[in-house]
Amino acid sequence: MNDEHFLRLALELAGKGAGQVSPNPMVGCVLVKEGKVIGRGYHQKYGGPHAEVNAINSAEADLTGAVMYVSLEPCSHFGKTPPCADLIISKGISRVVVGALDPNPLVSGKGVKKLIESGIDVTVPLLEDECKERIKFFLKHITTGMPYILVKTAASLNGKVNREPGRPAQLTCTESAAMVHRLRSEYDLILTGSGTVTADDPMFTVRKAAGRNPAVAILDSSLSISPSARLFAAGRKVYIFTAMDQDRAKAELLREKGAEVIEVGKDERGFLLLHEVFSVLGKKGIGSVMAESGPRLTSSLLASGFTDEFIIYITTEMIAGGENFIHPEFGGVPQGSQLLHTATGSSGTDICLTFRTEKSLKHVYRSG
Amino acid sequence: MNDEHFLRLALELAGKGAGQVSPNPMVGCVLVKEGKVIGRGYHQKYGGPHAEVNAINSAEADLTGAVMYVSLEPCSHFGKTPPCADLIISKGISRVVVGALDPNPLVSGKGVKKLIESGIDVTVPLLEDECKERIKFFLKHITTGMPYILVKTAASLNGKVNREPGRPAQLTCTESAAMVHRLRSEYDLILTGSGTVTADDPMFTVRKAAGRNPAVAILDSSLSISPSARLFAAGRKVYIFTAMDQDRAKAELLREKGAEVIEVGKDERGFLLLHEVFSVLGKKGIGSVMAESGPRLTSSLLASGFTDEFIIYITTEMIAGGENFIHPEFGGVPQGSQLLHTATGSSGTDICLTFRTEKSLKHVYRSG
Repeated sequence: MNDEHFLRLALELAGKGAGQVSPNPMVGCVLVKEGKVIGRGYHQKYGGPHAEVNAINSAEADLTGAVMYVSLEPCSHFGKTPPCADLIISKGISRVVVGALDPNPLVSGKGVKKLIESGIDVTVPLLEDECKERIKFFLKHITTGMPYILVKTAASLNGKVNREPGRPAQLTCTESAAMVHRLRSEYDLILTGSGTVTADDPMFTVRKAAGRNPAVAILDSSLSISPSARLFAAGRKVYIFTAMDQDRAKAELLREKGAEVIEVGKDERGFLLLHEVFSVLGKKGIGSVMAESGPRLTSSLLASGFTDEFIIYITTEMIAGGENFIHPEFGGVPQGSQLLHTATGSSGTDICLTFRTEKSLKHVYRSG
Repeated sequence: MNDEHFLRLALELAGKGAGQVSPNPMVGCVLVKEGKVIGRGYHQKYGGPHAEVNAINSAEADLTGAVMYVSLEPCSHFGKTPPCADLIISKGISRVVVGALDPNPLVSGKGVKKLIESGIDVTVPLLEDECKERIKFFLKHITTGMPYILVKTAASLNGKVNREPGRPAQLTCTESAAMVHRLRSEYDLILTGSGTVTADDPMFTVRKAAGRNPAVAILDSSLSISPSARLFAAGRKVYIFTAMDQDRAKAELLREKGAEVIEVGKDERGFLLLHEVFSVLGKKGIGSVMAESGPRLTSSLLASGFTDEFIIYITTEMIAGGENFIHPEFGGVPQGSQLLHTATGSSGTDICLTFRTEKSLKHVYRSG
């Protein structure tokens, strides 16, 4: 059992906070004494105790001389909870293995410095890329103020999203649907367009996996969606972004359904300014956005440079008619210039390809 | 070192005959005595000595009591060479491990029977699926008279074959090009349409890999291709399939370039009858066909039920304009009904997906 083994345990624990801690990071912590795990903890809920506190509280043994494995640098400042570094020092822990420094430029390195100055042995970083991957939402949000943006789509092997234009179709298999529901439970918010809401009337809830329902944001420049859309029924947060020349009576109707109607600018083509949309969401504490939309918004996001990650579920069907997931209005995304293929998976009969934008990868892995 | 290990060695050797032995099967053979490999051989060239003969000739040691590992059942009849079974018996080999029975219904099982009757221990089959995979061309050809048909295409992530309709474009990376050239060297013939020849003027030669150039067949119902097309320059066999009402003078011009012009029927849409094309090719000893064509022929082949395998190279580019690799004229290929995703690979920045038709898989793996 070496350092990597225990840090991986901590990383696994961190993942349990998915969907619960945003816009804070997922963090896991393991305490080891004489080669044995004597404490485990993870950040369970936004505003709740940190992973280190939960791990320390879970340990019954005396922590003098113990080693702490924590996936992210312990904090050294008073935030929603007191500084973890002080607690670690007070418990007589002799060594701390830290996966990655805190990416928050205001505090990065200060926790480690405090530990070292108190005489604790510190190893940092270890498994840095994996630890940063775990906090990719937090990392983007804390350093840019913008949420991490995933664009998800599903298409036939030849790129079609439906069999006939304008007619919604379920192309992917049940296994892919379950994977999408799990993704939803991990993201703070689903972003979609009013066209998708009107055509499909989606609920965007988590039904085929465990987890909480994400918030929803709809881009609806002309406030065209119906107040009876099913996504209002789920009793969750709904943001509706619209152009500045919106219909005030309609906005009132939507507000009565619990929606927050937000006015943003539009470009010369009449599209809502994505930069404004994401800035607003980021300021509201939305750390991660998963776009599930039609070809226009999908293309717009992929071409915009705002996207961090792109996941496509590809079926083995090949469709002669239908619409392509890249809308003819957009210039497309040139090979190699932005998207790097990072993973291939399969779900049932579908193929799942994951891409990261070069910009996003640089942001996560080379800026620390 | 067990039986599987040595049979895998034989299978590897078999692969060295790729592109050289058609329409005969690729076969490899290893001789083992006292746990040591004392002979190796493979079928090197159509009409040449069989793998067993080459392995026996390569061995300097006395073969009494040796074990033979051979990927396909030894022959028992006089074909282009004398029966291998007799030679094996005469050498005092005590045990033969056979990967798969000969799929040729006229001889299947007879070689094994002869060995057993002479007192030799026979193990059969072993690694049968892998051994059958190695002879998939031969298996299709010997049992149906038709060649094994691979459809190969390349497209952007959203299914486009070019950036503007009618304008040829190199979408894939150099690594994929090299893989395609290697594939060409393994197939007997490249099938294409006259549109591709006219638009791209392809050579269809093997340049970015080692191996011999395949023959070419062009579907050209109206004999529209130019006698100065570059593919004639390579000095290889070219078949031109045309409709029965062809232009005799033009046919003569093409024959002067070395082409064999073959008349076949056409369907009500004016398309040449694929069944006739493949029957003719099969009768001419073409055991394997790789189609490299535009969307119309690709779609037609995928929808026809004649395809055994489909390989698509997918780039990370997403193109708004351009043509889809499924032509709008065709009905498409429904999910799950014909294509099974069997392999995922990557070549450079491209993703390579391999599919087998259900019919083809049943043919190769469950008919023996």
